Amino acid sequence: MQKIHLFDTTLRDGAQSEGVSFTVEDKLRIVRLLDEFGIDYVEGGNPGSNPKDVEFFRRVSEIPLRNSKLVAFGSTCRPGMEPDEDPGVAALLRANTPCCAIFGKCWDFHVATILRTSPEENLRMIEKTIRYLVRLGKEVVFDGEHFFDGYQNNPEYALAALRAAEAGGASWLVLCDTNGGTFLTDIEKITRKMVETMKTPIGIHCHNDCGMAIGSSLLAVRAGAAMVQGTINGFGERCGNADLIPIIAGLHFKMGLSCVAQESLPQLYHLAREVSNVANITFNERSPYVGNSAFAHKGGMHMDGILKNPATFEHLNPDAVGNSRRFLLSEVGGRSGLVAKLHQIEPRLRKDSPETQQIMDALKQKEFEGYQFEGAEASFELMVIKCLGRYKPAFSILDFTVFCERPEGENSAKAVIKVMVGGKERLSAAEGDGPVNAMDLAVRDALSVFFPSLQAMHLTDYKVRVLNSEGATAARVRVQIASTDGKRTWRTVGVSTNILEASWIALIDSLEYKLMLENK
Amino acid sequence: MQKIHLFDTTLRDGAQSEGVSFTVEDKLRIVRLLDEFGIDYVEGGNPGSNPKDVEFFRRVSEIPLRNSKLVAFGSTCRPGMEPDEDPGVAALLRANTPCCAIFGKCWDFHVATILRTSPEENLRMIEKTIRYLVRLGKEVVFDGEHFFDGYQNNPEYALAALRAAEAGGASWLVLCDTNGGTFLTDIEKITRKMVETMKTPIGIHCHNDCGMAIGSSLLAVRAGAAMVQGTINGFGERCGNADLIPIIAGLHFKMGLSCVAQESLPQLYHLAREVSNVANITFNERSPYVGNSAFAHKGGMHMDGILKNPATFEHLNPDAVGNSRRFLLSEVGGRSGLVAKLHQIEPRLRKDSPETQQIMDALKQKEFEGYQFEGAEASFELMVIKCLGRYKPAFSILDFTVFCERPEGENSAKAVIKVMVGGKERLSAAEGDGPVNAMDLAVRDALSVFFPSLQAMHLTDYKVRVLNSEGATAARVRVQIASTDGKRTWRTVGVSTNILEASWIALIDSLEYKLMLENK
Repeated sequence: MQKIHLFDTTLRDGAQSEGVSFTVEDKLRIVRLLDEFGIDYVEGGNPGSNPKDVEFFRRVSEIPLRNSKLVAFGSTCRPGMEPDEDPGVAALLRANTPCCAIFGKCWDFHVATILRTSPEENLRMIEKTIRYLVRLGKEVVFDGEHFFDGYQNNPEYALAALRAAEAGGASWLVLCDTNGGTFLTDIEKITRKMVETMKTPIGIHCHNDCGMAIGSSLLAVRAGAAMVQGTINGFGERCGNADLIPIIAGLHFKMGLSCVAQESLPQLYHLAREVSNVANITFNERSPYVGNSAFAHKGGMHMDGILKNPATFEHLNPDAVGNSRRFLLSEVGGRSGLVAKLHQIEPRLRKDSPETQQIMDALKQKEFEGYQFEGAEASFELMVIKCLGRYKPAFSILDFTVFCERPEGENSAKAVIKVMVGGKERLSAAEGDGPVNAMDLAVRDALSVFFPSLQAMHLTDYKVRVLNSEGATAARVRVQIASTDGKRTWRTVGVSTNILEASWIALIDSLEYKLMLENK
Repeated sequence: MQKIHLFDTTLRDGAQSEGVSFTVEDKLRIVRLLDEFGIDYVEGGNPGSNPKDVEFFRRVSEIPLRNSKLVAFGSTCRPGMEPDEDPGVAALLRANTPCCAIFGKCWDFHVATILRTSPEENLRMIEKTIRYLVRLGKEVVFDGEHFFDGYQNNPEYALAALRAAEAGGASWLVLCDTNGGTFLTDIEKITRKMVETMKTPIGIHCHNDCGMAIGSSLLAVRAGAAMVQGTINGFGERCGNADLIPIIAGLHFKMGLSCVAQESLPQLYHLAREVSNVANITFNERSPYVGNSAFAHKGGMHMDGILKNPATFEHLNPDAVGNSRRFLLSEVGGRSGLVAKLHQIEPRLRKDSPETQQIMDALKQKEFEGYQFEGAEASFELMVIKCLGRYKPAFSILDFTVFCERPEGENSAKAVIKVMVGGKERLSAAEGDGPVNAMDLAVRDALSVFFPSLQAMHLTDYKVRVLNSEGATAARVRVQIASTDGKRTWRTVGVSTNILEASWIALIDSLEYKLMLENK
């Protein structure tokens, strides 16, 4: 099987993502992840551009790497200068990595407009800088900046830039679509021409400005590129770089090519999430292959098919990338999906049981009112138990008042609640950061005398969604909350035009669910 | 220029997105947006599957559409049944749309495993169902389910399914990559073969399971497909459908093909966001073409290049899609943007005015607290006026109480408010659908005695976002509201841990802004 080399630039190009700012510790953690996973080249940063990267390269040299070669990124020497006089090149050497990535201009328009030097001088800078680094024992990856734009405007000059890099002794010639605007078939065509023209192996570096960076990268590989540059989760400036996660999966599962060890593939799910965690960027759950939605089925016919044979509606076994299959609840889910869910609650329920029809009707009615049980499985379970006539209320609420006075300071909300449990009444009041917080505190205070385990319980998430926002302040709202007792987490939902009532419904479901769990 | 037809399925396939649940109102709003934008076919839902879609089709028939043809989605009749006996086909007809999309099986494996009927019977179902609908005057789009998987396993049978649809009189034969696993070059190759083989125009329907749905769709167009099916923002089951936004931009700007009127292209930015707002899905700001990051440049070389000539680092002029250029992490860029905004409020403010620094500090502090003034320009303007010392309060609030008792029915919330205007006091009380509605009614009732114009004003939008949802019910929330006086609309924002206080801040800003407008 042909081996494709992976070059990760999460720590350099990926660090240019809006909202991403890695600490040195973050970078070290990502290097370890990429090395364990088996990425061939890990570009750590630009030691000539900022002190954080200098510190990073000092500390990363202490980490023994098993699979990855560390790369420092920098540019050719400046116009009119020799490489050994250039402070940027000197900084690159001080990073002390086995490999350097050097970017050089391939578009004559940029040479004139940005560098403001002659075309010949730019070629000299490329060749000499690379030769200097190679003589000092470095492996050099040449990043041909704006290669595709350059080639489409002046193919001879773009080619001359690659030839200069090859003459200097570069190990790789990487064709960069720096502005991300090249159409994917042009990327394929031009890459093929370069593979045929040059002796040195070709790499590809795409950006996602047209939404096609993954496809462009894989087409370049089909055209003969033997290295793919990209970032984990497609982090990067503007719309991001090519996302290495689906590229790795695509190379293996769709193209039959190899890039990492077979055992690493089920780690893709974990790798994508860990890098998101370190970057503190919410993971996109719709991500190909590794998102939690990637193998989640919502349509009724689809779920029905999956139950008959997963190959009917899955292009890949989710285990192959460490992911898993999920069934979602919804009005479009139909009876099969519902039955699959119901089976977990009450194994004797069948597709044609009268209770199943009854539950389905109740579900449709609730969804019509604005309920959504996806992500609120505990409320769904309670609804099913109620439909089955197995619901025994553990407590009842006799009285309930929430008030906020002149709500301009914090903590101005109070709640007073009276509950009854087994014939005994109890009144509690609480003050909170807001009315919902006050309700939560008051009701748990009132009930925990009877059910001490409720004290250990707390809310971990609270979401509000206005359903018909054009109804403005009289709109219907849906509140979803997540609760935990330290061991498990469950989610509930409430809907009303009154946001306090919607919160209250979700809150009471959460308490009832906890007590139901204990009685099981 | 060749015209490519767009077929939007945001309301059908897109509704299968995890986390998306459209109300009937949401769907009607999206139909209006798509019609205004100029989408050719708008698939509204599956009237045979759920009561919400039935209600939707009833109401949408009252909306006059200028550009779009409305489509109802359904399947072929069942095995062993005639179309005129099939309840699903009857439901489809009751939707009363000019066009129907009928999906039928093209993969023999599915015919055997899912339908459990003979290959011949499936072909009969396709042909007869389509013929029946065509005779009743419908335009029929045939969605060839699993066409690519089917073709790769049994090309003769997949082709026979298309031939049956053509014989039945379908206007379009759409090749669906239902499971999203077909490699993009196979999509191109097979599409080309079908374009050459069939007389009926070919459409393409891709899913994003390999991260290449945009590229696959555009390659299919290159191969001769004349219709693209997809969804706004790529909503859809699992990893989503092909995203129509970059597809539209790609067709126009990268392929030189036409699909919507030239004037619509600068609406892409707005369309993508509005559909996200209606779906209440956080918009992905890294989206190609229309994300706020899509033309955002970080300092250094890129910004320097852009200032010399935008073509150096931009593949497209952001104005072309209604987007704009931004400079990030750059004191100069940041201040320039702010000054441009300030100029509209107070023309004498310069980049180096002391007030500019003061406003910048206030803005940073507010943003740190969780404020966001994008989409809340009225609150921003008030903040600036306050920083400039030009703010004169029109009224003051002396006293304020909101209470909800046993909030299980509707209309259980009351608000009591005392205001003072020019030395005169007034107390008002109101009852509302919820506490925020009660506050809104009470405060306008109290003030409209002094400012009768406030009576004509009302709220048109109310949005809540929990900022640190892990803080659960003690979390900080941001409320954004939109108000109108019938002539213009303005937006304001409030942030607090108390949702009523956050709403109150936004509400008061809205009233103050209205009065400020009148005094101008």
